[in-house]
Amino acid sequence: MGVMRIEERLTARGLVLPAPMEPPAGMALPFPWVRLWPNHRPGRAFASGHGPLLPDGSIPGGLLGKVGADVSETDAYEAARLTGLAILASLQRALGDLDRVTGWLRVFGMVNAAPGFTRTPAVINGFSDLIVDLWGPEAGAHARSAIGVAELPLGIPVEIEAEVAVD
Amino acid sequence: MGVMRIEERLTARGLVLPAPMEPPAGMALPFPWVRLWPNHRPGRAFASGHGPLLPDGSIPGGLLGKVGADVSETDAYEAARLTGLAILASLQRALGDLDRVTGWLRVFGMVNAAPGFTRTPAVINGFSDLIVDLWGPEAGAHARSAIGVAELPLGIPVEIEAEVAVD
Amino acid sequence: MGVMRIEERLTARGLVLPAPMEPPAGMALPFPWVRLWPNHRPGRAFASGHGPLLPDGSIPGGLLGKVGADVSETDAYEAARLTGLAILASLQRALGDLDRVTGWLRVFGMVNAAPGFTRTPAVINGFSDLIVDLWGPEAGAHARSAIGVAELPLGIPVEIEAEVAVD
Repeated sequence: MGVMRIEERLTARGLVLPAPMEPPAGMALPFPWVRLWPNHRPGRAFASGHGPLLPDGSIPGGLLGKVGADVSETDAYEAARLTGLAILASLQRALGDLDRVTGWLRVFGMVNAAPGFTRTPAVINGFSDLIVDLWGPEAGAHARSAIGVAELPLGIPVEIEAEVAVD
Repeated sequence: MGVMRIEERLTARGLVLPAPMEPPAGMALPFPWVRLWPNHRPGRAFASGHGPLLPDGSIPGGLLGKVGADVSETDAYEAARLTGLAILASLQRALGDLDRVTGWLRVFGMVNAAPGFTRTPAVINGFSDLIVDLWGPEAGAHARSAIGVAELPLGIPVEIEAEVAVD
Repeated sequence: MGVMRIEERLTARGLVLPAPMEPPAGMALPFPWVRLWPNHRPGRAFASGHGPLLPDGSIPGGLLGKVGADVSETDAYEAARLTGLAILASLQRALGDLDRVTGWLRVFGMVNAAPGFTRTPAVINGFSDLIVDLWGPEAGAHARSAIGVAELPLGIPVEIEAEVAVD
């Protein structure tokens, strides 16, 4: 009996990785969702800033706006979880296999915060809880910041970028 | 006569590293304050976003709020210095010995800025001045950004994350 | 016939790298514009947060303020392009030769966004388009975030930091 692979854990939890995001009309995105370096192993993968996606790759319209005003803390936690699944989908497409991610290193969480909303860590926990659940407390441990920013692209409630170790 | 160690320099300057922060009531923080990678040397340490702490590990209540309105630039500089001591305390706990930090690489400074407060670099200098004083101009040199953000966790005035080289 | 060097491409496009920024009056900047690590090859270079510069190293006064209110999206795109040239100038001074940059890894783009301005990716494209034009789609590919922040130093419209691979 071997250790369960990450993809098996996703399936066991009923989690679905979303399709690639359709670039929004009228806005070029001239960069990859994941940058791998170096090409030989071991290396690092840098995930671009991602937002939440539905399984079909669309942005959940009901989650747009300012957290603490338009979007509740509970819904923003879910948005951070969906952002995590979007990053995992990008990593899977770039690496072929999520088990190649041997360690989470740095997570930078940005919340589209309404004035006075300071519970940004509780929002980004939607991402961290997912990663620790899938990778476990050692490989899944990550340095993290969770801040409130003034605006995010297209009005998404949460954006997260990350750096991971790759074998 | 050897070179003075970092811990000796802290003592010579009368600087005290704070106790670990108590997690705020009702807010889980499911991540470590320092992520070390790889386990073998040399490697990197990623410091999570830290805020200012008093020696007992509590958040200085008199420093909460917007810099340029609730908190003066002078007090915010001091908050950035206290944030530096908090990061050094976390690095010391993770590494055992601050002399293992052989180079400061990247510092990202976030100021809880009141509208119109643009002197964010002067605030984060409270951190940079501390690091250069302790490590010297070569090992202590770091790439840096110092920006104003919309909100920070719990209303802290300054948050800083960093990446350092570890031997 | 060899591959055209980066400096030759700059010349062929009529692009001029700016002189070093004069530190603003009354504000010390106790950090380098580029942090190289390790000293032996290959390594990484971390570029501090840069803003737009004119060829003489001065900040373009006509580009100060909030993007979407004081500064148009078109002018902000140009500011991001000028920020790119400022980063290339700093990398050239630190490395001696821009061909030593063998890969762009991470780009973090910060826009001084007016309330409601969410087209931050279109602004930071001024930087990404420049890099991909000069380095090509493989070496020039970079993970990227493009967010709206509350305030930037001195009221500049755009600030960008980056991490690159160096040989």
